[in-house]
Formats: sequence, C-alpha cells, structure tokens
Amino acid sequence: VTPHPNVTLIGVGLIGGSIGQALRARRLAGRVVGVGRDPGRLEEARRLGAIDEGATDLARAVAAADVVVVCTPVDRIAAEARRAAALAPGHALVTDAGSTKARIVAEVEADPRARAAFVGAHPIAGSERNGVAHARPDLFDGRPCALTPTDRTPPDRLGRARAFWSSIGCTLVELDPESHDRALAATSHLPHVVAAALASAAGADRLDLAAGAYRDTTRVAAADPALWTAIFLENRAPLLDALDRLDAQLDAFRRALRDADAPALLDWWRSARENRLRFERPKSP
Amino acid sequence: VTPHPNVTLIGVGLIGGSIGQALRARRLAGRVVGVGRDPGRLEEARRLGAIDEGATDLARAVAAADVVVVCTPVDRIAAEARRAAALAPGHALVTDAGSTKARIVAEVEADPRARAAFVGAHPIAGSERNGVAHARPDLFDGRPCALTPTDRTPPDRLGRARAFWSSIGCTLVELDPESHDRALAATSHLPHVVAAALASAAGADRLDLAAGAYRDTTRVAAADPALWTAIFLENRAPLLDALDRLDAQLDAFRRALRDADAPALLDWWRSARENRLRFERPKSP
Repeated sequence: VTPHPNVTLIGVGLIGGSIGQALRARRLAGRVVGVGRDPGRLEEARRLGAIDEGATDLARAVAAADVVVVCTPVDRIAAEARRAAALAPGHALVTDAGSTKARIVAEVEADPRARAAFVGAHPIAGSERNGVAHARPDLFDGRPCALTPTDRTPPDRLGRARAFWSSIGCTLVELDPESHDRALAATSHLPHVVAAALASAAGADRLDLAAGAYRDTTRVAAADPALWTAIFLENRAPLLDALDRLDAQLDAFRRALRDADAPALLDWWRSARENRLRFERPKSP
Repeated sequence: VTPHPNVTLIGVGLIGGSIGQALRARRLAGRVVGVGRDPGRLEEARRLGAIDEGATDLARAVAAADVVVVCTPVDRIAAEARRAAALAPGHALVTDAGSTKARIVAEVEADPRARAAFVGAHPIAGSERNGVAHARPDLFDGRPCALTPTDRTPPDRLGRARAFWSSIGCTLVELDPESHDRALAATSHLPHVVAAALASAAGADRLDLAAGAYRDTTRVAAADPALWTAIFLENRAPLLDALDRLDAQLDAFRRALRDADAPALLDWWRSARENRLRFERPKSP
C-alpha cells in the first residue's frame, strides 16, 4: 500500500514539479496527476518525471484524489483550494505550498467544505529559477515546511498533512498563520526586496568589479516578477513592518558613518553578526 | 629565473596568505617573506605554505624585496606602504590589496619615495572568513584585480604591477582611485551594510524558517567587524551616496506596496531583475 494512493498537484512549476518528483522517486504515491492550463507544460512535467498524467480539467483531476496540493502563485491558492475541496472526495486532504498563509487560510476557512479538508502549508525551499525544468526530487530534503493549522483545522487532516509533508523530506514547523507571515516577511520577503533594491542601486555600470558579496546579496533579484509581486501584496502589512525595522537599522548605520563614529559602527556590525552566526550554528536536535 | 625573486607580504591573513600560496604553488617567487606582529601566526602561515619565512622586523623583511605587497587592514595600508618604500631597495615595486583606494593612494603619493614605488591595487576576492587558515592558492583565479594608477604613477611600476597581479591569476581592470571607490561602494560595501541590516532586522527568533534567500543575502554579515568598520570609514562619502540610492529604491518599493500598486511593484522588480541578469550574463571577451 503506498502512503498516498492518488495525489493531485494543482500547478506544476518548480514547487509542484519537485513535489511530484519526490513522491515518484520515493514511490510514495500510486498516481500523481498534475493540473495546469497549458498541455505543453503538463507534457513537459510528465516527461521530467514530475507527474504520471496531466489534466486541464480540475473536476476530473481531483475526482479520485486522496491528497490535493495547491502549488499555484499565492494570489490563486485560496480559490483553487476551495474549488478543489468542492470537487474532491469527502475524505481528501487539501493542502498548499504558498509562501504566505494568513489571507489564504482565512479565505479557505470561510468555506465550510474547504475548511474541513484544508491544512495550510509552506515548504520553505525554492530557487530564483522557475518552472518544472528546474524541479528536483530532493528539493525538500531536510528543508523546513511550515504547517499553519488553526483551531478550526480538523485534527485528522493535520495528522495527514504532517505525514504528507514529512514523507517528501521536510522537517515540520507548526505555527499560526500570522506568526508564519511575520517570520517569512523578515527571513524571505524582506531579503528579496533588499536584493532587488541593491541590484538597482548598484546599477550595471561596473559589474566587472562585482564579486561574491554582490553575487550573493542580489541573487534572488533574478526571481520571477509576477510571483513575487503577488507574494508582496499578500503579505503587505508584515512586510511593511519588516521594512520599517530595516530602515531603522540603516538609519543607525548612516548616522554612525556620517559622524565617523567607529565604536558605534563596530557595535552595530557586531550585533548584526551575532544574529547571523546564530543561523549558521547547528540546531539542537 | 623566477618572475618575482623576493616578495615581501606585509600582513599574512586571508589575502596575504592566499597571495603567498599562489606565488609558491605557481613557483613565481624565489622567496616569500611574511611580515606580522605575532610570531605564532607567522609560523602558522609558514606551515600552511603561504610564506618561506616570517619576520617581525619590517626593515629586515624588505631589505632585499623586489615586490612588497601591503595586505593589512585598510586603515594601516598607507603608513605601511610608506615605511616599506623608505626601507626597500630603490627598484622595488610597492603595491597593496586594500578594498578602498582614494585615501590610500593620496596618502602614499604625498610621499615622494613611496610615490615612485607604488601602484594601488585591489584583488577583488575574499570571504567572510578571516585569517591565513582560510587562505587558498586559487583565491584569485579569474577574479578581477583593480589597479588604480594615477598620472603620477611611474609607468615601469605599473607594468610590473600588471605582471605581478596577473601572474597569480587575476584579471586586470584599470581605473582611477575615485571611480574604484564609487564602484566598490555600490558592489561590495553597500551589500555588506545591507546584509548586516537584514540580519539585525530579521533577528534570531524564527531562523528555523530561514532558507536560501536569508542565507545568501546575509552571508557577509559574518565578516570581521574591525576590518569592515575600517573599510566603511575609509570609503565614507561614496558609501553614503550609495546608501542614498538604496534608500530611494526602498522608498519607491514601500510607496508602491502601501498603495497596493501591482503595476508599480512589477516594474520596480523587473528593472532590478534586469540589472541582476546583466551580472550573470557571460562577459564579452
């Protein structure tokens, strides 16, 4: 018996494609169906081992699903999850892979049938590259996956969501949707904004002198504009707060630099460095 | 005949150590002498193949030097270059590896004997890790080295500086000291400031949810506080200008986000992305 007999992935890009490849490589699913609008891209996903078959019709694609994973851009997740829940069998788990959670979870939970099937999730892995061509079966190995159950989430679905996301390699972290969005604003969305702001501030004039610091700080500025615009808009208030905290840091630095205040610059850098070193430190088991 | 019979490195950390290892691995130098204050660290550099011998006395260390490379923190480079030029043979080339150039070059050129020996240089390679323990003989392979001659730089020394820095693997880029400092403020110093500001803004609360974007945008925030404080202070005005450009970018983003202006966010991201993609594009030969 495979753990997940019928899995339907709505959206088969980098994330959906990698989920499909992980399921198939580990023989975790009896059948993986990929839903998309473009038959050519579904065929590419099949050829790349991400899905067993493609479907452009949602009703048929979820009719026998045990698990539905919505992997579309964030601004379409809630609607797709509600449609899928209405069309899938009553026992199906519906989950998602969206980078934001509060609005998605609230919109899904406003629909009783969707609420009874849904557990919000965010596997925190990815790349500045999009599309199933960059999918990898090991994309989630050892990467965190946030699950954001609420007090309205059915316990059996939460148990099945835990089993699903850990089966493809994720380490689970559970927290409420709002805490998730605040954390991701700081650790992902703000870094993306800053990468892009840096790329624009540096311009293109003397990139022959750019090296490792430029390469790494701006890497994610190559990410897809539409995907990220949607994420920023979904997570507007927490991202504006994170921007304010960044501004305060930059202001403190600028003041110290303007005053040529070496001790203040040293302290400022040391405290930033201490935070960064905490990230490198091996986590306790 | 080796290209550089006697080379003296003042400062044998990551950069000096890597220069020494590159010279010795490629058999480019007859003898490499490392100058430092701590005999224990000089012995470590010798053991790691970075130098043939260590010296704590500058006069003796440069007495027979054909090339002297000053690899100390930026705030000590000009003084060391002047002292070395005063003590080295008249034919010696004195060059440096400092991340800033305008002040260093001006201070060195204020001294006639140093001016006659000196060519400012900046091999643009490094790491957030310090010390000779992280030195690598291939650190400079294919990496840019900026040379910043002025109209007072002796042409023969410039020729020898080109030969020296390209012999250890660098690709040369020549420009004036002020242009260098503006370019590096944008492509290196500002990215360092931003990495640290991000690390502080994100804090340490939910780093279990941090992934690739956080890791890469904040990597260089682990760099040495004293070294970077010195660089910021040396390059104060260009860095303040670069900070203003960054601020303007962040303000534009914040306004668009506050207004939930999707087209403006898209445009903002696209134009940043275009700059970043230029960096990845293979350079024309």
